Amino acid sequence: MVETRIRFGILGCANIARKLSRAMLLSPNTAISAIGSRSLEKAITFASENHFPKSTKVYGSYIAVLDDPDVDAVYVPLPTSLHVRWAVLAAEKKKHVLLEKPVALNVGELDTILAACESSGVQFMDATMWMHHPRTTKMKEVLCDEQRFGQLKSVHSMLTFLGDDDFLKNDIRVNPNLDSLGALGDLGWYCIRAILWAHNYELPNTVTAIRDPGYNESGVILSCGASLNWKTDGKVATFYCSFLSNLCMDIIVLGTKGNIRVHDFVIPFNEKVGSFYAVDNSKWAERALGCAPEPTEFKIATDLPQEALMVQEFGCLVAGIRNGEAKPENKWPVVSRKTQLVIDAVVASIENGFVPIEVVY
Amino acid sequence: MVETRIRFGILGCANIARKLSRAMLLSPNTAISAIGSRSLEKAITFASENHFPKSTKVYGSYIAVLDDPDVDAVYVPLPTSLHVRWAVLAAEKKKHVLLEKPVALNVGELDTILAACESSGVQFMDATMWMHHPRTTKMKEVLCDEQRFGQLKSVHSMLTFLGDDDFLKNDIRVNPNLDSLGALGDLGWYCIRAILWAHNYELPNTVTAIRDPGYNESGVILSCGASLNWKTDGKVATFYCSFLSNLCMDIIVLGTKGNIRVHDFVIPFNEKVGSFYAVDNSKWAERALGCAPEPTEFKIATDLPQEALMVQEFGCLVAGIRNGEAKPENKWPVVSRKTQLVIDAVVASIENGFVPIEVVY
Repeated sequence: MVETRIRFGILGCANIARKLSRAMLLSPNTAISAIGSRSLEKAITFASENHFPKSTKVYGSYIAVLDDPDVDAVYVPLPTSLHVRWAVLAAEKKKHVLLEKPVALNVGELDTILAACESSGVQFMDATMWMHHPRTTKMKEVLCDEQRFGQLKSVHSMLTFLGDDDFLKNDIRVNPNLDSLGALGDLGWYCIRAILWAHNYELPNTVTAIRDPGYNESGVILSCGASLNWKTDGKVATFYCSFLSNLCMDIIVLGTKGNIRVHDFVIPFNEKVGSFYAVDNSKWAERALGCAPEPTEFKIATDLPQEALMVQEFGCLVAGIRNGEAKPENKWPVVSRKTQLVIDAVVASIENGFVPIEVVY
Repeated sequence: MVETRIRFGILGCANIARKLSRAMLLSPNTAISAIGSRSLEKAITFASENHFPKSTKVYGSYIAVLDDPDVDAVYVPLPTSLHVRWAVLAAEKKKHVLLEKPVALNVGELDTILAACESSGVQFMDATMWMHHPRTTKMKEVLCDEQRFGQLKSVHSMLTFLGDDDFLKNDIRVNPNLDSLGALGDLGWYCIRAILWAHNYELPNTVTAIRDPGYNESGVILSCGASLNWKTDGKVATFYCSFLSNLCMDIIVLGTKGNIRVHDFVIPFNEKVGSFYAVDNSKWAERALGCAPEPTEFKIATDLPQEALMVQEFGCLVAGIRNGEAKPENKWPVVSRKTQLVIDAVVASIENGFVPIEVVY
């Protein structure tokens, strides 16, 4: 039997790779063919614990995965500081690249990665799972509905979770040598993507960080936020992200005629059904004794979890390229780059005393 | 029969006075004894349409209300620019003052009002109705619960509604001579109060306006926002208010261990039952495939609507003073003044190019 599924190689045994490898096994058009870790033993254990097929090749290095001719695409969940090295090498080896977020430490690094992917004709996609939930499509339908939403005016997004003392000192995501963007990279990435998504990826004109971010002892950001301004229609957005507050994953989008709210946008409470809330054309009751209508809950069921849908979508794009039917889809590199540009602007604003930073593609 | 209820006089026939006069009739310890308008005819119609008791005295001026010995307290829903004149005069005439928000155009004016009230020994309270809903008390209980909420880290509040073209050009609330604070005074007042309430009225150290507020042709603010920073624990808050978006009245409060959300904080959708949502000690599911628990809805029933509870509370304070049992409650002037100080800081930040403004009581 000819293998028509897209065969993934996984670089490293990051915790998030447990979720993503499950997704690769769930998605009908993808398979896992290899995993590599600096520790062969760790890779063997990881493959076993995560029910990888017996045929999976297990390597004691990342490079062996890239050199494997039975690998079509790599999933890269390595610490951010290693992305530019391994994503570029993967592209050079003609492997399609599914890259964990934040994709890079800055847009210069990302451009190096994207240039390598373009030069090799491989697909690039960042692993922002919620983009692929059917709920996200449904929410966008509401946002595009002139009667139910009208013109976009404002977005607020927030993503927080509580890291314990050990996390805040020792986790990869707060280590200045591994993930120096801290909470901004790990959580702010999602908040910024949500804002751009709601704005149809129109970049803001300026980004201004909120004063006094929180830092750990190594100077890595533990909590921060920013406001984004668009000249068009005076649109404004704010976000807040933090490793110091109980879990919160909200987007609220305000339009002239309606608004939508979602309370678990990054990882739905329930894998099978995602909810959001919408309301439009709200009116005060007589004498302002109340208002109506109340927001309506929309429940969007999905057979596959959002990460499997992401892997499936990535697999479809790769299959199209492999079959010679399509070129790499440019949407994904572009939205990654825009997200990274806003992250860079937040960093620049913080470093320059919270001044507004112009954003130019 | 001796009248033991607190007898209100109402200055003017503002639309909001229809709601508040209903509250005075609903509250068991208050009564309406007089209304005055510059137009006697208007006052007669207003009294009739709003089912005022036949005994109500109807005047063709505001001063007549203040001179009426059968009036214990006045409710002042006049345009903001008239507050200092009429609230001071009311206090001088020994009338207790329930003052619509925004209470003044700036803290200097408010201080003039508060000095007059203090000098006359009368109660001052601003008409911020949601403060008096039992839901607000219940939410505060959650915020004070170390196990369910932990330490406060961040607040975001927003209040918007869609004004039509006529409103945006001609309404009192966007008239530079009547309510020059525009959306910041009318709506931002509530957002700022919510933030201060969540912070137990600890003033922020700095207030920084978000860039590019919206204005009407007369230069009055139609939409704006700000971020507030506290040195203590690096707490941060943001708010957004606007006359240009469909109705939205949200507070979200983040603590280390939990969070609460409310979607109709200013005027509950339902007069009889107010909801809010709380969650604590959220945990990711195995392999981050979901998270639990989901937020729980709390439903708080109330026999009297929040504005009647406000009037009742005001009436209780006035009765205590009248009976010689108590002095004016200082909490209400203090929270009004703190709210006004933050409003003034937002204005100063906007006028000075969105710089941070220090806030000092």
